[in-house]
Amino acid sequence: MTPREHALRLDAQDPLAGFREHFLLPEGVIYLDGNSLGALPRATPQRLRQVIAQEWGQDLIRSWNTHHWIDLSTRVGDKIAQLIGAQAGEVLVADSTSVNLFKLLAGALTLRPERRVILSEAGNFPTDLYIAQGLIELLGGRHELRTVTPEDLPTALNEDTAVLLLTQVNYKTGYLHDMAALTAQAHAQGALVLWDLAHSAGALPVDLGGCQVDLAVGCGYKYLNGGPGAPAFLFVAKELQEAFQSPLSGWLGHAQPFAFDPDYRPAPGMVRHQCGTPPVLSLAALECGVDLMLAADLKAIRQKSMALGDFFIALIEDLGLGFALASPRAATQRGSQVSFRHAQGYPITQALIQRGVIGDFRAPDILRFGFCPLYVSFRDVWEAVAVLHAVMKTTAWDRPELKLRGTVT
Amino acid sequence: MTPREHALRLDAQDPLAGFREHFLLPEGVIYLDGNSLGALPRATPQRLRQVIAQEWGQDLIRSWNTHHWIDLSTRVGDKIAQLIGAQAGEVLVADSTSVNLFKLLAGALTLRPERRVILSEAGNFPTDLYIAQGLIELLGGRHELRTVTPEDLPTALNEDTAVLLLTQVNYKTGYLHDMAALTAQAHAQGALVLWDLAHSAGALPVDLGGCQVDLAVGCGYKYLNGGPGAPAFLFVAKELQEAFQSPLSGWLGHAQPFAFDPDYRPAPGMVRHQCGTPPVLSLAALECGVDLMLAADLKAIRQKSMALGDFFIALIEDLGLGFALASPRAATQRGSQVSFRHAQGYPITQALIQRGVIGDFRAPDILRFGFCPLYVSFRDVWEAVAVLHAVMKTTAWDRPELKLRGTVT
Repeated sequence: MTPREHALRLDAQDPLAGFREHFLLPEGVIYLDGNSLGALPRATPQRLRQVIAQEWGQDLIRSWNTHHWIDLSTRVGDKIAQLIGAQAGEVLVADSTSVNLFKLLAGALTLRPERRVILSEAGNFPTDLYIAQGLIELLGGRHELRTVTPEDLPTALNEDTAVLLLTQVNYKTGYLHDMAALTAQAHAQGALVLWDLAHSAGALPVDLGGCQVDLAVGCGYKYLNGGPGAPAFLFVAKELQEAFQSPLSGWLGHAQPFAFDPDYRPAPGMVRHQCGTPPVLSLAALECGVDLMLAADLKAIRQKSMALGDFFIALIEDLGLGFALASPRAATQRGSQVSFRHAQGYPITQALIQRGVIGDFRAPDILRFGFCPLYVSFRDVWEAVAVLHAVMKTTAWDRPELKLRGTVT
Repeated sequence: MTPREHALRLDAQDPLAGFREHFLLPEGVIYLDGNSLGALPRATPQRLRQVIAQEWGQDLIRSWNTHHWIDLSTRVGDKIAQLIGAQAGEVLVADSTSVNLFKLLAGALTLRPERRVILSEAGNFPTDLYIAQGLIELLGGRHELRTVTPEDLPTALNEDTAVLLLTQVNYKTGYLHDMAALTAQAHAQGALVLWDLAHSAGALPVDLGGCQVDLAVGCGYKYLNGGPGAPAFLFVAKELQEAFQSPLSGWLGHAQPFAFDPDYRPAPGMVRHQCGTPPVLSLAALECGVDLMLAADLKAIRQKSMALGDFFIALIEDLGLGFALASPRAATQRGSQVSFRHAQGYPITQALIQRGVIGDFRAPDILRFGFCPLYVSFRDVWEAVAVLHAVMKTTAWDRPELKLRGTVT
């Protein structure tokens, strides 16, 4: 059986194959960048037409009540909770991942006032580190952001650690942390944990409750297919919710926003983490993406995701073209992406995009390919590698004019 | 000449009358709540269809470059700058008004490290006060939020004042502060000023540059007609931009976000105040609203706005039905809204809404009517008062079953 025949057989057996019809994807494109921006669900344009023309245009201010805009952030939060092993009332959609990181890191430091260290991974997504740095500077430099390699995390955890801040799936390599083990190790040292689910929510089963996670944030525009810059979400375990308020104590987080009380009193539960008025159009689009995700079986998503990655790795390595695997080889240790290193990674990525195979590049030398099992098929993977093969055969990748350049996506 | 004839004559002379056609307004509704949620511009649905179907759906991640999503926040910011007397490069669209207040209040305290007081008006919009309270708590309570009446502001300004935080137009009464005078008085005491333009941007000419304002924030979903929860904006005067970074130091505010540097370095200028990825759909809708506003003459908007308010006040007072003016009588001291007090304000507002006249209610007794000159006519004002008259005649407003109730809009 040829690799192509193998791909077609896997597609024929795929229980998720029908989901592709629920997305509007461009013709002639193989989209392997859903880990950066998820694809457009078929239901979204119609829903947004309704929100814009009817809810905003016709019903205007009344829609806060009649169309329940006022509850959108908690409603979509409750839906996301089902994807990440959280309870209803533990997740709120609000602001961006970065802003939510700020809220919860500040909260974590409040809960561990005698501890000075935010511990993270050196290769964490930069915004996680930047937000910690900004908060520490604002607080007068009394705290420290300590970053170590993943292997050194267990020994770096100690009685100085206020909070362990990690992204479950590394954005560059796809490395998947052991959430249960690291959370337990942090707790054993009396530290809190804050997990960033940007590359895991919607990509694999996450069990915040089962792992006894304290705090988490995540992204709406990757595997949740919420649209460009979709609002993010944040999670606080029930038992911690009343223990701290948001440092961004905006009016929609007030216990009674429409009492226009001059003194801030946080709302009960997660609502206190609302700050300003949420972007309703973007939030309505996010709900469409989340609804679609809720219709799928996350275990099936995970199975297919691992199989897509394994197939991709095998095909690339069969080519023998100098790509070095930058992701864990074991599928169980990877998120839903596969990365390879190549010195000419940037121009190769550009050449692939020109030929309709969309992955992305992360400096200095990472070619990154995401596999969203709801709309990527095994045939897509086979074709992507065939295109890569053609690109590598038809171009002299050591030509001096093909210098490594910067990129903005 | 009857009041109705007078209204029709004023409409016939209105240089802005043609703008109403650029909005999609419901039939049978007189919308006097654009100060809470602006109406839908006619151009917005088509633009959003394009952003969703083509830019997101077809071009996917590439749209950050090909459709310039990456520049949207600065591009729309530069457009808003033209409405508020700012220069290009002084305004950025980002996050919510509340989040932007946090960034700039924190910056102001950084710039005045020896001063302890955030001075504001007791009747300021609550989120301005709440954000100050949250920041002060986060910083350990070393600062104080002091609130006084508008008349007491000049004497309350002193060498302890780090920043004067005011909303230019009061959300309840429509009272319009003298921005030039108060800014000069604050500067004379060495304090910075932070103006909240929620109820003034797009409603009247604002001259941040001419008044030498340091810092400002504003709202996208009121007079800018950007849609529900549209992103907000913030302004930092050129000469202060390099003096402080954002405490919300997210990755899109980094000097080189796509270098994925582990250490935060703020971008030059306003871009440092970007935090996370902006909600592109909501941001694109905001641009449509701002574009429409840029096509209008702000001086004509102000003239019409004052005339609409004066006409409304005269008609209501002619009715003699126990409504007490809660706004300044002099149009030059009002924003683009008129408020009246009435003990039965809540049920009266509800009765008006039932009859298609949409204003809103602010506890405990304020009926608030906003006049967006781009889509409200003098005839609308006349009709609204006629409906109010009918409501008041046909209902016994002292009936016990019409108790004052809470409201969420």
